[in-house]
Amino acid sequence: MTLSASTHLAPSTVSLPLAQRMSRMKTSAVREILKVAERPEILSFAGGLPAPELFPVEAIAQAHAEVFAHEGPAAMQYSTTEGYGPLREWICGHLAQRGLTATTEQVIITSGSQQGIDLVAKVMLDPGDVVVVENPSYLAALQNFDGYQARIEYVGSDHEGMRVEELEALVARVGKPKLIYIVPNFHNPKGTTLSLERRHALVRFAQRHRVLILEDNPYGELRFRGEALPSIASLDDMGVVVQLGTFSKTLAPGLRIAWAAGSKELMRSLTIVKQSTDLHTATLSQRATARLLTKFDYDAHVTKLRAVYGERCQAMLDSLELHMPEGTQWTHPDGGMFLWVELPRGLRGEDILPRAIEQRVAFVPGSPFFAANPRPECIRLNYSNRPPELIEEGMRRLASVLAAQ
Amino acid sequence: MTLSASTHLAPSTVSLPLAQRMSRMKTSAVREILKVAERPEILSFAGGLPAPELFPVEAIAQAHAEVFAHEGPAAMQYSTTEGYGPLREWICGHLAQRGLTATTEQVIITSGSQQGIDLVAKVMLDPGDVVVVENPSYLAALQNFDGYQARIEYVGSDHEGMRVEELEALVARVGKPKLIYIVPNFHNPKGTTLSLERRHALVRFAQRHRVLILEDNPYGELRFRGEALPSIASLDDMGVVVQLGTFSKTLAPGLRIAWAAGSKELMRSLTIVKQSTDLHTATLSQRATARLLTKFDYDAHVTKLRAVYGERCQAMLDSLELHMPEGTQWTHPDGGMFLWVELPRGLRGEDILPRAIEQRVAFVPGSPFFAANPRPECIRLNYSNRPPELIEEGMRRLASVLAAQ
Repeated sequence: MTLSASTHLAPSTVSLPLAQRMSRMKTSAVREILKVAERPEILSFAGGLPAPELFPVEAIAQAHAEVFAHEGPAAMQYSTTEGYGPLREWICGHLAQRGLTATTEQVIITSGSQQGIDLVAKVMLDPGDVVVVENPSYLAALQNFDGYQARIEYVGSDHEGMRVEELEALVARVGKPKLIYIVPNFHNPKGTTLSLERRHALVRFAQRHRVLILEDNPYGELRFRGEALPSIASLDDMGVVVQLGTFSKTLAPGLRIAWAAGSKELMRSLTIVKQSTDLHTATLSQRATARLLTKFDYDAHVTKLRAVYGERCQAMLDSLELHMPEGTQWTHPDGGMFLWVELPRGLRGEDILPRAIEQRVAFVPGSPFFAANPRPECIRLNYSNRPPELIEEGMRRLASVLAAQ
Repeated sequence: MTLSASTHLAPSTVSLPLAQRMSRMKTSAVREILKVAERPEILSFAGGLPAPELFPVEAIAQAHAEVFAHEGPAAMQYSTTEGYGPLREWICGHLAQRGLTATTEQVIITSGSQQGIDLVAKVMLDPGDVVVVENPSYLAALQNFDGYQARIEYVGSDHEGMRVEELEALVARVGKPKLIYIVPNFHNPKGTTLSLERRHALVRFAQRHRVLILEDNPYGELRFRGEALPSIASLDDMGVVVQLGTFSKTLAPGLRIAWAAGSKELMRSLTIVKQSTDLHTATLSQRATARLLTKFDYDAHVTKLRAVYGERCQAMLDSLELHMPEGTQWTHPDGGMFLWVELPRGLRGEDILPRAIEQRVAFVPGSPFFAANPRPECIRLNYSNRPPELIEEGMRRLASVLAAQ
């Protein structure tokens, strides 16, 4: 097959007209910062990374080995768009334990929850359609909705999550939304949890106005304080909720195995769209995950994650209390991976970051998480990726940077 | 975490307004038929499935085991959107051997080539933009472009592939296209290969009109007859080609590891879009593939695939010659996985299929592959998925169905 001459794959010397959406899509500040913060000498609290030492590597390796030994050719072949049946069945059992009964037709496998967001957006959104988000909100969801040229509108949030009571006024102002996007448990970036009362009110609003709620729940399993609240989907009896769940935070993100659950009709639409988007999620990863779950003590593993993340969160809270300059404020999460800090004296996250990196500590400035009206004094800190002693050292470094301003 | 009451995930009892694109997106006939044809008693030539007995299961299993043993936590973690560096470097070397020099910045990893199509469409297409395809063309590409509400226009094709000489007339008729989509080697569904002269002419056209060519090359490695032709990308010096390549046909589709190569500028745009579409392709699969390629004799493996597929293609050609009723015509591929049959006497593939399944043989009717003006007398046959004796038995069954009409 080798040809004698090698031609250089050409750099672009002509300007090709891109789609209009590209003018709205910028690279993620978080991911660009992650690249700098990857240097080993930097204590980074910037990423949204689970603790790598807690990945159940051996169990996942064993599950893969068994798949290769017992179902190798099938695991290497193309498979159905909806996803591997036994894995979808396990997810149905998992949801039932959490108060939500679903048939396998109501669950599809996605390539990470991010793809769940993309598929729902592709099924629902025309340019100019209103999507309601919390402000601030998960950055890559905002970027995805930008890609569909949605009109992103927001309601505020407080320590109980999205201010659902502001939704009616929003409708009066901008018209009926097509989609409400919400991270109800241990919000990214804020760490807050939507109260039960607001969950009910949100479902009532969505049912009354015929609006789809996209309940993105990557962190729900990671509760280390208090009692679990019913999911938004479990409060709905009209099929107006699509719930996203994932193994990224409980097993390993590198597998890219997640799911979407909702009405059969919507899952059918998501499947049609997924077919032409990536055909299906990797057969091997799906089968290995399904096999793992038949013997691995998932609940015990998640219980351990909760304990460790709870300890790390507490270490961060204690360190902030001990070291941060007066006037600094932060949230007190009941689970998940993040907390949200307001810097004192009008200090701006984006100004502080380069100096923090000089002092070998990193975080994410809060501004990019805002759909509008950014609050530059906010920053996001991740506590899941480092042990308590490094969290304390990191907060000490950060505090010294703040004190020096 | 268990809640006492379990609520049913509601079926949709309200009608939620979907995006306009959904009115154009239907489920793939090919994939629906695949489900029926999965029954073990049916000799199916419907799918686009590689030969499962040739998957290098042991080598892939070994590569996974080594990744778990030596880089487990890193392989389980989130990773960069562009893809795993060493894998991209291997691909650059692979492309160089095939006459195309690219830097790693010009290559990104995608979740199958289907995602490559989706990312290019997302970067390039606004509703109403003209996409030029061959007629017939790869079905899931047509569905993808439909999802971006493109205006799909076509030029004809013959035994030398797309009739590139018709492009100027098309521009005069419908205006300048944004994208030309082409499978130049061993076309799906036709099995034809674009001639060298037409490759040159296509690049000249794209450069003159500033149009992007999407060169989808899933089958190029599978040539079992004749000499390889230069890729379209290798004939371009202006950055107007994005080339898609994949391991799905040479290693295993269940891994979902493929790549896109093009100008650095376009790869940057694809990366931004991929970030909000699925964050990144599975870390484990990428690292295992990269590790496999350091020691596995990929060239020898592909040489073996070529020999086997050549033999199977020949078995199908011989069987068609021997059994098919007079007036049946078919293509003579130099590689790939498919050939294309025109049934005699106005017989229609869609009418024949149910009778064929009764006789335990399956194929794909040709009509869905046409962007317009379908030719219902055409069918697609896959020869890669069955050994010669079953191919002969299958063609015998099919011929008897045709003879009985």
